[in-house]
Amino acid sequence: MENEDFSGLKAYLAEKRALVDEALTGYLPEPKGPAANLLRAMKYSLFAGGKRLRPILCIAAAEAVGGSDRDVLPVACALEMIHTYSLIHDDLPVMDDDELRRGKPTSHKVFGEAIALLAGDGLLTEAFRLMSLPELTEHVPPLLLLEVIRLIAGAAGYGGMVGGQVVDIEQEGREVDIPVVQFIHTHKTAALIAASVGAGALLGGGNKEERTALTDFGEKIGLAFQISDDILDIEGDSEAMGKRTGADAEKGKITYPSVVGLTRSKEIQSALVQSAVDRLGGFDHRADPLREIARYIIERKK
Amino acid sequence: MENEDFSGLKAYLAEKRALVDEALTGYLPEPKGPAANLLRAMKYSLFAGGKRLRPILCIAAAEAVGGSDRDVLPVACALEMIHTYSLIHDDLPVMDDDELRRGKPTSHKVFGEAIALLAGDGLLTEAFRLMSLPELTEHVPPLLLLEVIRLIAGAAGYGGMVGGQVVDIEQEGREVDIPVVQFIHTHKTAALIAASVGAGALLGGGNKEERTALTDFGEKIGLAFQISDDILDIEGDSEAMGKRTGADAEKGKITYPSVVGLTRSKEIQSALVQSAVDRLGGFDHRADPLREIARYIIERKK
Repeated sequence: MENEDFSGLKAYLAEKRALVDEALTGYLPEPKGPAANLLRAMKYSLFAGGKRLRPILCIAAAEAVGGSDRDVLPVACALEMIHTYSLIHDDLPVMDDDELRRGKPTSHKVFGEAIALLAGDGLLTEAFRLMSLPELTEHVPPLLLLEVIRLIAGAAGYGGMVGGQVVDIEQEGREVDIPVVQFIHTHKTAALIAASVGAGALLGGGNKEERTALTDFGEKIGLAFQISDDILDIEGDSEAMGKRTGADAEKGKITYPSVVGLTRSKEIQSALVQSAVDRLGGFDHRADPLREIARYIIERKK
Repeated sequence: MENEDFSGLKAYLAEKRALVDEALTGYLPEPKGPAANLLRAMKYSLFAGGKRLRPILCIAAAEAVGGSDRDVLPVACALEMIHTYSLIHDDLPVMDDDELRRGKPTSHKVFGEAIALLAGDGLLTEAFRLMSLPELTEHVPPLLLLEVIRLIAGAAGYGGMVGGQVVDIEQEGREVDIPVVQFIHTHKTAALIAASVGAGALLGGGNKEERTALTDFGEKIGLAFQISDDILDIEGDSEAMGKRTGADAEKGKITYPSVVGLTRSKEIQSALVQSAVDRLGGFDHRADPLREIARYIIERKK
């Protein structure tokens, strides 16, 4: 892979991130009334500096099949809320017990464990309210929207993200083989990323073939993305990342480097990205942001 | 209120409970594979002897406007999953720290805190997948189903149940006045009960007037139901209830009896039930189960 400067991609990501941030700001009211702390906690984590990878992938997939970002915004924002809830719960002392995320104290360090737990619950629930807002059905057939809700709930639930987290927790500190780490990563991370791309393809009006290709693409880059997280925990700069590196090894987390070594992990990651980009062979220039995002996964520093 | 034997109601409740239990059994697969423990934990709490009040209210409301139980079953089951998730999270040590529920050890006592947390997350997520299943749109217009999802997510989230739980936790041990306990109870409990009745009215094809009347009914019995929970924690038999009574007072929980006293709580509860039943004045005999459920709230022993 040649040395790219990714300047076009960076402008694209900044533009879409601003769009998502603006929409997210509009969806949650100002914290007031007896339950104000709940909304404060929900917003604290939602605006703690996330990359907005899932919403941007959703938008980019919609654009790749000829749709527009405006059509998918509530669903894109819902994906970010689901991702954020999973981080809040993951950071809790009964789970990974992390004190820092993106350079800021985690939710339970700021609001206490009970409010952090409930902020996660609130974000997960609100995600599904967003996906059923009437503004979406001005652009999208209601049946298609129900399919999107089903796709995302399936990817986030016991057959996807939550299932992956259970195995991640249960296997911590054990010796495992490749199928187990693959199960954890495809469920814990790749499922929701693939659903983000798949939802964008559906909402953007993609045909069946386009949707299958984009979902495959999403699964591959989702797995590559989690492997790059594993690698950054070893090679990354803790200041750039805003969290302590080396934590995975200390905790005995199951990672690709811990199972197959660093060199083989990088080979697997490169092959996944190449295979993901190949899957976009039938798409025109409108899929360029997806192609560049895939390549950027290997280069990213945080 | 005369002394009723509720034998007709008991047969009705048993019939609908069996229907809901059968459907719930069908929706969750047998636990197997790496994440089997997650499904075990989800099922453990889902089949721990719940009364199925919310699904039955949803069905009864659909029937009251001329609909049938079969039309609403996935949504009725989703309501029970949402209720069950809220109990699992509520019982966690960082929340109410309860060891027994319905005579059985709570989820985190059996599966550990991490799996209990994730089982709650899995149930909440699965609830929304159920509500978007294609089998529902065979009977229900997709736009109506999206309205139901929006209604239930709104009632379960920060503006409803989760908001009520935050205030419940934050105010524990404090001196509060009537508006605060009313906020807690209407949000923590009545909102999802009202949404259960409202969703049944929508799915059953009720017109706007019927839906408004039934939602009002649901709010009133929801509040009455939480007050009866408060009263049972003082006067109830711990064996019949399957949990230790007197826990509210020990923990300094905000309850109607703690704020207005036991006598006044019972008066408020009776007035709410009467006013709820009055709201059904325009409905025929098909609303009789709802009327009886409302009256039964005062008589129940567990």
